[in-house]
Amino acid sequence: MINVAIMGYGTVGAGVFKVLTMNHDLIAKRVGEELNVKYVLDLREFPGDPAQEVLTHDFNDILNDPDVKIVVETMGGLRPSYTFTKTLLLAGKSVCTSNKELVAEHGVELREIAKENNINYLFEASCGGGIPIIHALDSSLTADEIDAVTGIVNGTTNYILTQMTVHDESFDVALKAAQAKGFAELHPEADIEGHDARRKIAILSTMAYGKHVSYQNVVTEGITDIDTTDIEYAKAQGLKIKLLASSRKTEHGIWAMVAPMLVSAENMLYNVEGVLNAIYVHGNALGDAIFYGSGAGSLPTASAVAGDIITIARSLDRTLPSDWTGEELELMPTDDIEHAFFVRFAGSEEEAKAVFGDIAPVRLDNVDGEFGFMTAVMTEKAFRECSEKAGKVIKSIRRA
Amino acid sequence: MINVAIMGYGTVGAGVFKVLTMNHDLIAKRVGEELNVKYVLDLREFPGDPAQEVLTHDFNDILNDPDVKIVVETMGGLRPSYTFTKTLLLAGKSVCTSNKELVAEHGVELREIAKENNINYLFEASCGGGIPIIHALDSSLTADEIDAVTGIVNGTTNYILTQMTVHDESFDVALKAAQAKGFAELHPEADIEGHDARRKIAILSTMAYGKHVSYQNVVTEGITDIDTTDIEYAKAQGLKIKLLASSRKTEHGIWAMVAPMLVSAENMLYNVEGVLNAIYVHGNALGDAIFYGSGAGSLPTASAVAGDIITIARSLDRTLPSDWTGEELELMPTDDIEHAFFVRFAGSEEEAKAVFGDIAPVRLDNVDGEFGFMTAVMTEKAFRECSEKAGKVIKSIRRA
Repeated sequence: MINVAIMGYGTVGAGVFKVLTMNHDLIAKRVGEELNVKYVLDLREFPGDPAQEVLTHDFNDILNDPDVKIVVETMGGLRPSYTFTKTLLLAGKSVCTSNKELVAEHGVELREIAKENNINYLFEASCGGGIPIIHALDSSLTADEIDAVTGIVNGTTNYILTQMTVHDESFDVALKAAQAKGFAELHPEADIEGHDARRKIAILSTMAYGKHVSYQNVVTEGITDIDTTDIEYAKAQGLKIKLLASSRKTEHGIWAMVAPMLVSAENMLYNVEGVLNAIYVHGNALGDAIFYGSGAGSLPTASAVAGDIITIARSLDRTLPSDWTGEELELMPTDDIEHAFFVRFAGSEEEAKAVFGDIAPVRLDNVDGEFGFMTAVMTEKAFRECSEKAGKVIKSIRRA
Repeated sequence: MINVAIMGYGTVGAGVFKVLTMNHDLIAKRVGEELNVKYVLDLREFPGDPAQEVLTHDFNDILNDPDVKIVVETMGGLRPSYTFTKTLLLAGKSVCTSNKELVAEHGVELREIAKENNINYLFEASCGGGIPIIHALDSSLTADEIDAVTGIVNGTTNYILTQMTVHDESFDVALKAAQAKGFAELHPEADIEGHDARRKIAILSTMAYGKHVSYQNVVTEGITDIDTTDIEYAKAQGLKIKLLASSRKTEHGIWAMVAPMLVSAENMLYNVEGVLNAIYVHGNALGDAIFYGSGAGSLPTASAVAGDIITIARSLDRTLPSDWTGEELELMPTDDIEHAFFVRFAGSEEEAKAVFGDIAPVRLDNVDGEFGFMTAVMTEKAFRECSEKAGKVIKSIRRA
């Protein structure tokens, strides 16, 4: 029997407890041994819940129990999860987590400690919920030079944008609907301002390119400025606006960005709607591949955590191979990143053409005093300079 | 340095050689050691090709070289690949393959031999080309009870059906186009009669349910009977016809089937067009997940094979955990499998209703003397009995 502890009995932690109970026999068969949840750590009480029987309020119960080989960290945030995780790894206990914040901030150090102690620190659930992308990047896709990763990795913003597109709702109405359905938090900033997606693309890019991408260096824009007129312009061109978390290996270096982007129907992410997530990967041998599934939710995320538990249980006292290194990946200057830009412009066509060259204006029936156009592909710097020169640019949205 | 041999220098074998060369440094970094192709086994000569330098015509060169730890089998077919693979595994060399025929026929035995010898027999490339589904079923998705697998796993037939749907081509014209483009073989029976998909769903189902599914037991229908009228009826209902390789865990048991089926736009496989492949998996915790990518082609398939090589190279002298067992999975009787059936009927609406109950007729402008309708969900047996009773059933296609 292998003993497991779960730290944090919230949505994901409770999901892990449920999956380990519900699929107990099947998991025992796959591991070759029974998995037993010996402790659930939480400050709260859960009367009537089966977890109450194994509940502890004291982290030391887990730390000091030599029977516990695997600990699940589903507390979220950095404190106290960072200290707890580090202490456990140093004590020779493997840890798996859904905590993208902690992985993005301290993943390199924690993975290094796990390696030194011949154990594992796994985080499949940190990106894309149940979608098994992290392990794939660490195993099946290792023969490829990955040169592109693009994900719809935040269900909240994808739900909001889908509502705005399909039901012509305003951002505020769509956000309230998302909150009412439990798809958005009361304080939704981390989602709608792109910080959640930023951490995820930093983790995915680190796995894809084999050097550490600091999330702080990822260019990040949220969707709070997207209005119904932007959506109408997108529709008029057969496009959709999606919050994309992307990174690309180019001849000038690697860039990473979270931003609302215009996506065409040919793009395989065009049809990813609502709270679903999808992650696109391109490899120099593989070509295009997409992983699609539930990016959040108690059970899908728990499925990924529990998959990590099983992986660890099958490899106790052996660090799984990986080429994640602590070396920092220096991203190329933001100024050099290239996209086409859709511009909403308050000037005349002549004024736009004088600076941006040949453009095809897009006009909306119900919108006066402006029109839109798509620029050629240009760098961020060139676009900024052109915008300043032309003036009268109301706003711009990159094209994926 | 780890030495590798490639047996069979055809499309996939040459792709593996190319990937190992092209991504040599990157792979060395990921493995922690250089990978060197010491032998390529083929009866032919390849003057001018870099493989010529390491070419051998003698299997014993590989078998008797103690330096060779990993052998790639990309010969295809059962003979001599079965004997070669078995001999190599018994000699303590790990093998990885793209050979679905061999895996479907002898995979259980070969995996067993690998386990006894503490080495590996891997076959990621046998289903869905570059799509990393096999390893996912063996690792990330192990916490789930998988209850559904459905794949578009044959690019040839999907290309033909796409041409018939999008360009209104007849089956024969579409097949010739596929042959001209190299998407179909001169003798395309294995693809168009469903035998290729049958082997793949047998392998996928074995991985998903943990017991051996014999491909011979998979109910199999190809697409050779699909005509332009069927496609028109599908379109009239907003549906598409796809060759689906499916298996389901139901309360009555597990079934597996390859057949052309009617797919609605809500189905995530609806938009999988041309030679692309996609595999849908449902788990009791995971929910829905889809893996999407290039199902064939030299480099995508080679990417999967090379991924297996790396996995083996990182775990030499250690069998990777798996719960694939030799135990045979007894599929439920075909008679008990349930679907709705779309029926083309040469009788009157009254005759159809008398047997099938309330139906909504679908009529095509240019087709006289028949109409179509969708039945309720019923068993194969009930449908067969109803069809016999009603008579005048021209043909039927299941609804996914």
